[in-house]
Amino acid sequence: MTIFEQVDLWASRVPIDEERAHERKEISREILCRLNSLTKPQGSLGRLEDLVLWYGLACGQSLFPDPGGVVCVFASDHGIAMSGVSAFPQVVTVEMVKNFANGGAAVNVLARQAGLELMVLDMGVNADLSFLPSVVNAKVAYGTQNFLTQRAISPSEMVQAMKTGFDLSVKLKVQGKGFLVLGEMGIGNTTSASALISALLELPPVLVTGRGTGLDDRGYRKKLEVIEQALSLHGPTISFPLEWGMAVGGFEIAAMAGAILGASTVGLPVILDGVITSASALLAWRICPRVKHFLLAGHVGHEIGHKAVLEHMGLTPVLDLDLRLGEGTGGVLASQLLKSAICLFHQMATFEEASVSGKI
Amino acid sequence: MTIFEQVDLWASRVPIDEERAHERKEISREILCRLNSLTKPQGSLGRLEDLVLWYGLACGQSLFPDPGGVVCVFASDHGIAMSGVSAFPQVVTVEMVKNFANGGAAVNVLARQAGLELMVLDMGVNADLSFLPSVVNAKVAYGTQNFLTQRAISPSEMVQAMKTGFDLSVKLKVQGKGFLVLGEMGIGNTTSASALISALLELPPVLVTGRGTGLDDRGYRKKLEVIEQALSLHGPTISFPLEWGMAVGGFEIAAMAGAILGASTVGLPVILDGVITSASALLAWRICPRVKHFLLAGHVGHEIGHKAVLEHMGLTPVLDLDLRLGEGTGGVLASQLLKSAICLFHQMATFEEASVSGKI
Repeated sequence: MTIFEQVDLWASRVPIDEERAHERKEISREILCRLNSLTKPQGSLGRLEDLVLWYGLACGQSLFPDPGGVVCVFASDHGIAMSGVSAFPQVVTVEMVKNFANGGAAVNVLARQAGLELMVLDMGVNADLSFLPSVVNAKVAYGTQNFLTQRAISPSEMVQAMKTGFDLSVKLKVQGKGFLVLGEMGIGNTTSASALISALLELPPVLVTGRGTGLDDRGYRKKLEVIEQALSLHGPTISFPLEWGMAVGGFEIAAMAGAILGASTVGLPVILDGVITSASALLAWRICPRVKHFLLAGHVGHEIGHKAVLEHMGLTPVLDLDLRLGEGTGGVLASQLLKSAICLFHQMATFEEASVSGKI
Repeated sequence: MTIFEQVDLWASRVPIDEERAHERKEISREILCRLNSLTKPQGSLGRLEDLVLWYGLACGQSLFPDPGGVVCVFASDHGIAMSGVSAFPQVVTVEMVKNFANGGAAVNVLARQAGLELMVLDMGVNADLSFLPSVVNAKVAYGTQNFLTQRAISPSEMVQAMKTGFDLSVKLKVQGKGFLVLGEMGIGNTTSASALISALLELPPVLVTGRGTGLDDRGYRKKLEVIEQALSLHGPTISFPLEWGMAVGGFEIAAMAGAILGASTVGLPVILDGVITSASALLAWRICPRVKHFLLAGHVGHEIGHKAVLEHMGLTPVLDLDLRLGEGTGGVLASQLLKSAICLFHQMATFEEASVSGKI
């Protein structure tokens, strides 16, 4: 089976809109009926009511328990980091994975506070991490190739990375997890994400590229040049979105695109974080547009490519806090609001139960 | 002592900016120093870093524990409700207070989920609620007067209501509470709040008046007419913001304005909710502009007067979820993000502790 056949097979398993139209209508009706029975003016919980509706439709249920969620941080290194596109040295990827393992990073703190399980996956960190028991070893290679000179990822590596994500989502659903927050770590990965977004949206790099972890003007110009060169190098030979994923992507981006396809197949709601997770969503969406029903944009952040992708896909972010950290932090923060919305849906009294009068 | 003397005395106790300038500079320096030592690119937690800084400055400390907060719901009835300005009958105020007492309202659910203490105060509900042990009896009267024909609140009632709020904040600070979320309930109170905002901002009612709990076009036109009439009736005799508070305000609005003055005096950070709490903040701010340092705008909601007040006071809302429920719901949701920010500040590892490399 070629990689295209494999990916087509995955995409074919995501429920078809038309087949589910009646079921979706029923679920919407039941959820809205309950929301409108609660002791509040109709619609007055605003976006929180939309979140409940989205969640029910993504799960395919109008009755669901308070969800326990999981945040998965996909870590990988990037050959392009050698070309001076990041404010931090490549070794920070492995250092931060150790920080995750020790519970000291931002996403650890937020996951603890939000009561989410945290899973860290080594998709391709440029160091042996098998001695860290809390890190899932899913290493495809010791980092991608530098996409200034060659394709970042080979077809067999791409399938392997995507399959890791796909299978993970299926497993999480079987385990009864209520939602998946996507997170990532990888020095150089905003360059990879911006290149992918620029290629897939056919927008010039300057409109979708930010300063990542904090590049100065000179570093930012370099980053733009690198992306422009990469697009010129690979563009002439590329016909499909998946090929762009291999040309300029990363193992973590591929794994998250696979996780989104898997989650959409089994009805596991997915919360996106920043520009990298959004690039992976864009790739998955180009492979199968029906994944959109399963995606929630946790926030819109500092990186301009992030906003461009969300607007293009028609996803409205829950939060706008000027975050630019990644790791899944914005997604975990948004998941608190999703949980609040679901608690309200389950626990508020109805007008009848509380003997509260309705509208005049 | 006249009401003006009493209010001037309260205002005089709020710390003076110039006196605290050096202390504030030291606190800022210490908080930023810690934030910049944590394992993240500098400033990458965006608005969450601003929240930590705001919190420390409002408390007057760079070292503070993870805060336990309290949400106080001030309930009261409004004479103006008799003039057909709400989509719901006046009895809903007392019915909803019972709903709060039974734990079934939206703010109950959110406070439980966020781990906040909930306190409900009867400031002037139009029914005897003394049989509800969980509701604080601070009743000024059985509702305000209808401000279409006379002043809503007398001077002695205004002092009583404001003093209840002022003393409450002082007590909460002494008890060690970390912050106060303001909430309210009162059929007709968006009319009162919009009239107050229109008067204090000198903007026509149509620019600061929304549909409250869900008025139709006819009800909305009526609400605008009522506000215009009230402003014409009272305007000629009024010189001071406090007089507008008495002319068109409510007992819950007065109590919250007092609570803000008290909180500012003792350094208790306050989180605002919707348009009613924002009207009370505007009144407190006009009495003493220094209260601004102690205020956080939890969200910006559906009511146009809400946005107008926040813009006028220069307060940037944390959330934008199209809420229009009140009760403190948006404030409690925002408090989760404040708590997240403070957890990050306290619990993240530093670059040194985690042996993570810095910028190139």
